[in-house]
Amino acid sequence: MSYRIEKDTIGEVKVPADKLWGAQTERSRNNFKIGAPASMPLEIIYGFAYLKKAAAYTNCELGVLPEEKRDIIGQVCDEILDGKHDDQFPLVIWQTGSGTQSNMNVNEVVSNRAHQLAGNKLGEGERKIAPNDDVNKSQSSNDTFPTGMHIAAYKKIVDVTIPGIQQLRDQLDHKAKAFKDVVKIGRTHFMDATPLTLGQEFSGYVAQLDHGLNALKNTLPHLLELALGGTAVGTGLNTPEGYAEKVAGYISEFTGYPFTSAKNKFEALAAHDAFVETHGALKQLAVALNKIGNDIRMLSSGPRSGIGEITIPANEPGSSIMPGKVNPTQCEALTMVCSQVIGNDVAVTTGGMQGQFELNVFKPVMAANLLESAQLLGDASVSFDENCAAGIEANQERIDELLENSLMLVTALNTKIGYYKAAEIANTAHKNGTTLKEEAVNLGHTTAEEFDAWVKPKEMTNS
Amino acid sequence: MSYRIEKDTIGEVKVPADKLWGAQTERSRNNFKIGAPASMPLEIIYGFAYLKKAAAYTNCELGVLPEEKRDIIGQVCDEILDGKHDDQFPLVIWQTGSGTQSNMNVNEVVSNRAHQLAGNKLGEGERKIAPNDDVNKSQSSNDTFPTGMHIAAYKKIVDVTIPGIQQLRDQLDHKAKAFKDVVKIGRTHFMDATPLTLGQEFSGYVAQLDHGLNALKNTLPHLLELALGGTAVGTGLNTPEGYAEKVAGYISEFTGYPFTSAKNKFEALAAHDAFVETHGALKQLAVALNKIGNDIRMLSSGPRSGIGEITIPANEPGSSIMPGKVNPTQCEALTMVCSQVIGNDVAVTTGGMQGQFELNVFKPVMAANLLESAQLLGDASVSFDENCAAGIEANQERIDELLENSLMLVTALNTKIGYYKAAEIANTAHKNGTTLKEEAVNLGHTTAEEFDAWVKPKEMTNS
Amino acid sequence: MSYRIEKDTIGEVKVPADKLWGAQTERSRNNFKIGAPASMPLEIIYGFAYLKKAAAYTNCELGVLPEEKRDIIGQVCDEILDGKHDDQFPLVIWQTGSGTQSNMNVNEVVSNRAHQLAGNKLGEGERKIAPNDDVNKSQSSNDTFPTGMHIAAYKKIVDVTIPGIQQLRDQLDHKAKAFKDVVKIGRTHFMDATPLTLGQEFSGYVAQLDHGLNALKNTLPHLLELALGGTAVGTGLNTPEGYAEKVAGYISEFTGYPFTSAKNKFEALAAHDAFVETHGALKQLAVALNKIGNDIRMLSSGPRSGIGEITIPANEPGSSIMPGKVNPTQCEALTMVCSQVIGNDVAVTTGGMQGQFELNVFKPVMAANLLESAQLLGDASVSFDENCAAGIEANQERIDELLENSLMLVTALNTKIGYYKAAEIANTAHKNGTTLKEEAVNLGHTTAEEFDAWVKPKEMTNS
Amino acid sequence: MSYRIEKDTIGEVKVPADKLWGAQTERSRNNFKIGAPASMPLEIIYGFAYLKKAAAYTNCELGVLPEEKRDIIGQVCDEILDGKHDDQFPLVIWQTGSGTQSNMNVNEVVSNRAHQLAGNKLGEGERKIAPNDDVNKSQSSNDTFPTGMHIAAYKKIVDVTIPGIQQLRDQLDHKAKAFKDVVKIGRTHFMDATPLTLGQEFSGYVAQLDHGLNALKNTLPHLLELALGGTAVGTGLNTPEGYAEKVAGYISEFTGYPFTSAKNKFEALAAHDAFVETHGALKQLAVALNKIGNDIRMLSSGPRSGIGEITIPANEPGSSIMPGKVNPTQCEALTMVCSQVIGNDVAVTTGGMQGQFELNVFKPVMAANLLESAQLLGDASVSFDENCAAGIEANQERIDELLENSLMLVTALNTKIGYYKAAEIANTAHKNGTTLKEEAVNLGHTTAEEFDAWVKPKEMTNS
Repeated sequence: MSYRIEKDTIGEVKVPADKLWGAQTERSRNNFKIGAPASMPLEIIYGFAYLKKAAAYTNCELGVLPEEKRDIIGQVCDEILDGKHDDQFPLVIWQTGSGTQSNMNVNEVVSNRAHQLAGNKLGEGERKIAPNDDVNKSQSSNDTFPTGMHIAAYKKIVDVTIPGIQQLRDQLDHKAKAFKDVVKIGRTHFMDATPLTLGQEFSGYVAQLDHGLNALKNTLPHLLELALGGTAVGTGLNTPEGYAEKVAGYISEFTGYPFTSAKNKFEALAAHDAFVETHGALKQLAVALNKIGNDIRMLSSGPRSGIGEITIPANEPGSSIMPGKVNPTQCEALTMVCSQVIGNDVAVTTGGMQGQFELNVFKPVMAANLLESAQLLGDASVSFDENCAAGIEANQERIDELLENSLMLVTALNTKIGYYKAAEIANTAHKNGTTLKEEAVNLGHTTAEEFDAWVKPKEMTNS
Repeated sequence: MSYRIEKDTIGEVKVPADKLWGAQTERSRNNFKIGAPASMPLEIIYGFAYLKKAAAYTNCELGVLPEEKRDIIGQVCDEILDGKHDDQFPLVIWQTGSGTQSNMNVNEVVSNRAHQLAGNKLGEGERKIAPNDDVNKSQSSNDTFPTGMHIAAYKKIVDVTIPGIQQLRDQLDHKAKAFKDVVKIGRTHFMDATPLTLGQEFSGYVAQLDHGLNALKNTLPHLLELALGGTAVGTGLNTPEGYAEKVAGYISEFTGYPFTSAKNKFEALAAHDAFVETHGALKQLAVALNKIGNDIRMLSSGPRSGIGEITIPANEPGSSIMPGKVNPTQCEALTMVCSQVIGNDVAVTTGGMQGQFELNVFKPVMAANLLESAQLLGDASVSFDENCAAGIEANQERIDELLENSLMLVTALNTKIGYYKAAEIANTAHKNGTTLKEEAVNLGHTTAEEFDAWVKPKEMTNS
Repeated sequence: MSYRIEKDTIGEVKVPADKLWGAQTERSRNNFKIGAPASMPLEIIYGFAYLKKAAAYTNCELGVLPEEKRDIIGQVCDEILDGKHDDQFPLVIWQTGSGTQSNMNVNEVVSNRAHQLAGNKLGEGERKIAPNDDVNKSQSSNDTFPTGMHIAAYKKIVDVTIPGIQQLRDQLDHKAKAFKDVVKIGRTHFMDATPLTLGQEFSGYVAQLDHGLNALKNTLPHLLELALGGTAVGTGLNTPEGYAEKVAGYISEFTGYPFTSAKNKFEALAAHDAFVETHGALKQLAVALNKIGNDIRMLSSGPRSGIGEITIPANEPGSSIMPGKVNPTQCEALTMVCSQVIGNDVAVTTGGMQGQFELNVFKPVMAANLLESAQLLGDASVSFDENCAAGIEANQERIDELLENSLMLVTALNTKIGYYKAAEIANTAHKNGTTLKEEAVNLGHTTAEEFDAWVKPKEMTNS
Repeated sequence: MSYRIEKDTIGEVKVPADKLWGAQTERSRNNFKIGAPASMPLEIIYGFAYLKKAAAYTNCELGVLPEEKRDIIGQVCDEILDGKHDDQFPLVIWQTGSGTQSNMNVNEVVSNRAHQLAGNKLGEGERKIAPNDDVNKSQSSNDTFPTGMHIAAYKKIVDVTIPGIQQLRDQLDHKAKAFKDVVKIGRTHFMDATPLTLGQEFSGYVAQLDHGLNALKNTLPHLLELALGGTAVGTGLNTPEGYAEKVAGYISEFTGYPFTSAKNKFEALAAHDAFVETHGALKQLAVALNKIGNDIRMLSSGPRSGIGEITIPANEPGSSIMPGKVNPTQCEALTMVCSQVIGNDVAVTTGGMQGQFELNVFKPVMAANLLESAQLLGDASVSFDENCAAGIEANQERIDELLENSLMLVTALNTKIGYYKAAEIANTAHKNGTTLKEEAVNLGHTTAEEFDAWVKPKEMTNS
């Protein structure tokens, strides 16, 4: 491989000749061989592209950067956002905890690409756009990285997580309505209980997702707060007057999202409670989806020795050894995602705990975990919807069979003959393997007519 | 010990003669010898007292309970709320996961105490108020226990957690203002950085707590939703028309808090995402308080070999072996509480994941953990405020000494001479153990006058 | 209440006249009003009693404490171990993170009680046994508290956790053998699968507990390492030559357990990885028990609309509203305990992460969580054994019914006719609601005789 | 793109013409669009390659597979292990929880590649090696996937994790010895304490890693147990006599590691406590490394306003805005990895909890998290060693300055003049800003000569 020489304040570094990055990126590549290469999420790089462009526009407007430089920086940022330089960001999550080297990676790529766009070859001639003094002007890693991660996280949640979960929620709501007259046995403690409709059961899932989405949306204002303008420690050193608000405005304009300048920049650098907050809501959604996935798995269990009240699509052969087997694979993928998100929540929490003085240096790990959770929850919800929930059907025959057998219909008699006599009926029927009606009459607690009049499963559902 | 005989639908049980509880409580005492006795939080019992009274009033108003029964049930509930029967609730957290036995414990105590109030002896004569048919009328454990735990949790958070944290927040805000002119060195990566004021540093803590309190308050509407009226599986079987809304109204009246009837009772029984949601916010506050406690601990470190920029009160001898030692003990208590809350969050999450069909049977463990976290965070914040934060003083001499020495003041030169020359000055001063000014002049990058004009710590803070 | 005056190096403190504790305990009571009083586990106090006595004997043997003082210190420690002074330890977990104040609590109680035993009144005359110079001789909180917590934890695990889980393991093993010929349908993905015996199913539970107990025992050597002799920072300052090994020997003698002196005292003070290690094994056992509790819950589900392959004891009325209902309450208590232990693991981990330099100051929270987990797992296992597992019975009729229906018996044909043809049989039977044999013959893939010869459920279990 | 048609028991599927995979892989690609493609770790695929080859050899030896088929299967497996087909495994973690589709992916690739090796074109002619009946012979996903994940995990831990941590441990041990005479101030509660040597401080880190490595090694026997031979539910249905032990033997031979056949196959399919166990030890190591990384970060803090007792290498410019700044970047990467591992532990735990009946269907998520943790800990330890620990130097001047100033040297006087008088000296010196010796003499507690004779920092370290 051929190399060129790049320099930083420490000295010279050999960089692959065809790469746009510079000395600091290359140092980081060599010093942090931890896990898979290029693990730093591209979404964060794109976040940087938005903010670098916004900073250039703001700096120009405030008179500290010439228009010419603004335009070339903006042009390269747009190229990055178009995905043209995805292979120029080779760094890993496990670098300096402020993400300094990824900030410099972007600064270096913009500088070198600008050099190319001006008709030069990499490593030849003097660069007009300096990584630190121009691309990073009025910035520090300490305020750019959190800004980049907020942009990335907000976009992911608004573009992927919320629509994905909403789509599943709407499907479940559609099913809840479709199943509104399917009266079935209820189960509490995994034991037979009084009846409800299958629609009511599904309405609980919808309510869980509604509450979860609401909780997630409640966290967005904090996530919309950007650190940019705080620079090194939150004071805004080396920024021109009015910079913070203006740059947030440009970011809003370029992204189309209503970002704001953080009211307190010290918090925005030293703590990432916004990520703890948002991930907490993702975890709540994981808890909800885990319940839903588990219920669907169990309701569809069988085909002959399980509960079998619903049928789910058979998307693939279920077993490499058991012919004809069908499995609730989407439930499994979904609940595995939930386990991951619940684990990620602890990683985010653990990183969030450990800020010190003016900086939290667990930024990349917090960002990567949140982005993963947000992506997985959105994707898994869509996959679960399209490949499972949409195809759920009530197995009416099985539902009826189980309902008619149920001993817990006896509960309807509480208000007529009291809890103790009702219990006697249920216990006797259970012991004798008979029906409630038989024993109600045998024990003299009701007549057959009374029984029929009082024990009406459909009415017991109040639906 | 002397006993009397009590009965339930399974048979007879010997109960200590002087206790108000009945057969089912006694069965539970014997069947669940797990951990310390009476671990079920009293706050939940009080929550039951509110709701049993409210149910009696609602049942009466809706014509299914006579006034006489309503009044006696209400009277006993008031006695419970006055703390007169605290020793009548011997059950543990680790019982049936619906809390059925604690519900029955309350039903039995109300029934037997009513018997006493009517002038009878325990175990003699027929009880007028039946545990199931009267005290539990229009109720199930499945809707009463979650109602009791919501009442308990909301009260704890509003009465203890929020005021405690708010008190600490206000103290820190007071300090932030008092320290607004104390210019000090900043620290990022635990390394010397550009200056800020001690007030700015503290303002970050205030912002963390403001965000945390806001997040906590965002969760309260979900917590205010009560399951009562859902009975066994969420359908409201065996409740009179209009019961759910009315009973929530009575609970609001009796507690003074704006409880509402859960919009979806199926969710309210089968999932406790409201607890996951609220505890998520408690965890966020723990993350914030952990950062604050750690910073205070480190800022006050020394007295001679640490950072020592602030002084905290010496409340007790710090060491049993090292004479004269003073330790940041309140920081330690506070951060230990944070560890507990972060652990409790996983317990709540784990419980929340495992609901099945119409019921989540991890109610007691979820409730106990949330109540503990809420109490500890409130108490520890008050303790930290009164015994530590209120007494924090800036150690001006030390602060000045460190500030003057700082190499990172060089950052002010970036916009004058560029990042590379500024780095050269800092690196040379570091290597030679000299001052920035000396090297700036030696290297010919600034004159002495320029240096003095450009490097002004106070101005670097933008405060 | 009447008071007397006690003093420490900071000054005078009013202490309740009838209490044995002194100034530092009282300061702590006032300064740490966090959570319930006296939450510091008594087991740790008893651990202190063992070590204070052992230190006195060692100090005496090494010539730095007179026999007279040794004897009186030993006498008071024995009284503490006899439970005579349980109400003299009012402090909470949430104190200084080294547990200094609980160490001083013990020192003060021993000193004052010795004063009483010598015939004096509290607060009158000069104490012969000084809290720091005598009771705490050759000690620091920094090495005594970890020693006390190791003693307490080891005892709890050996006395409660291991025997409790072993008892349940033996019961399950007994059931595995009793059920060795009960052939039943297997379930994978919660779906019908090939058969196994109920005994085989239970043998998996036994293997889980065997592995878990083995993992727990692997952690005990680390837990047996005692910090005592390290004093303030691990160097053993102010201890006589040979002290560390000798004092560990006395502790072993007094407790009957094979404690050793930690090979590296710096680790023993600054990190509590031994607790992280042991609690990790407790968490593994919680994972195992959660699986077992869940399986039993589901296998016993019904009575008419669940799986119902086993019957568990009906220990109490299951529902306050549904007459005759029986619930798997022991499964619920057990799995709630598992949730708590899994949460506690994160609290222990979080505390364990945060040691700094020569000391970890999350000792009390780590100790309290481990002791709780160890107690709960032991107790819950015994409760589950005695009130549930011991009474498990196979429901042969139901098991046979489900087995005979099963489509997955078709798997036995793979090696005869190949996976694809076998799948065709199963799919056709499923679609038509027929039996495998019917379709095997219809499709011409086997004769009736071949089918009967090849598909033998019992043989499919290889048991 | 051009396609060919592949079939499975459900029907036909279009597969990219140039890919070796078949119908079921393609179904999975389409049905599980969750997160990044091909996220299933290649290490698991390689584990499959080992076991498929071993199964072929065993089947052949036991007379159920011809030699010809054995050889061709073995040949393709070797190609996979040589990395020649890495792009043929496009599936994600988030598929069916038994990993069935990845098992089939391997089966299909082996089948189609064998077809090519026999001189045929994909999709043309009849395949001699059938995915299910030949490649998967005597196997099920339910026993192959756990076998593959055990092979992958064991290899990763033995090849990457243990050597990486051992390398760092040895470096720290080397430093502990090099620093054995560097007497420095100790710190407890982050406050000045009695002295120790820098070597002693580092010896604590070594002890932590020794204990952690020992804990990790204790878990390996469980990890060495392979499920293979259990097939669908653990009974070994459709395997020839003696298969399980023999196939484990072949796997040992091919991998060079001492794998064994799991004593209980039911546990090996239905629970993955071995992964919970091993990951628990990884988490313990994360806790230890977090402490070490934090200490190094803080000991090297400064350069002028921190502790600064050690110097670490300056590997890269530390700041994009603060010229000349050097940061403890390797500490940050290491501790971020620790946060990830601590989070992953909860993901593994959560997955491990949720096994049901004969199968745990959280296999892929558990495997992926453990493999990530094992890789990151190993890599980060090596990176930390080579780029940080190896270059640590004691800053003797700073160490001496802090030591001489220390008030806690007074502790040496305890055994001479008692704790109370010693405290008086320390408190007075603290108040007056004077030296201990001055105040010891002023207060008349020691002569100057006594002070010098009694207070000798080096002797206080007992080193």
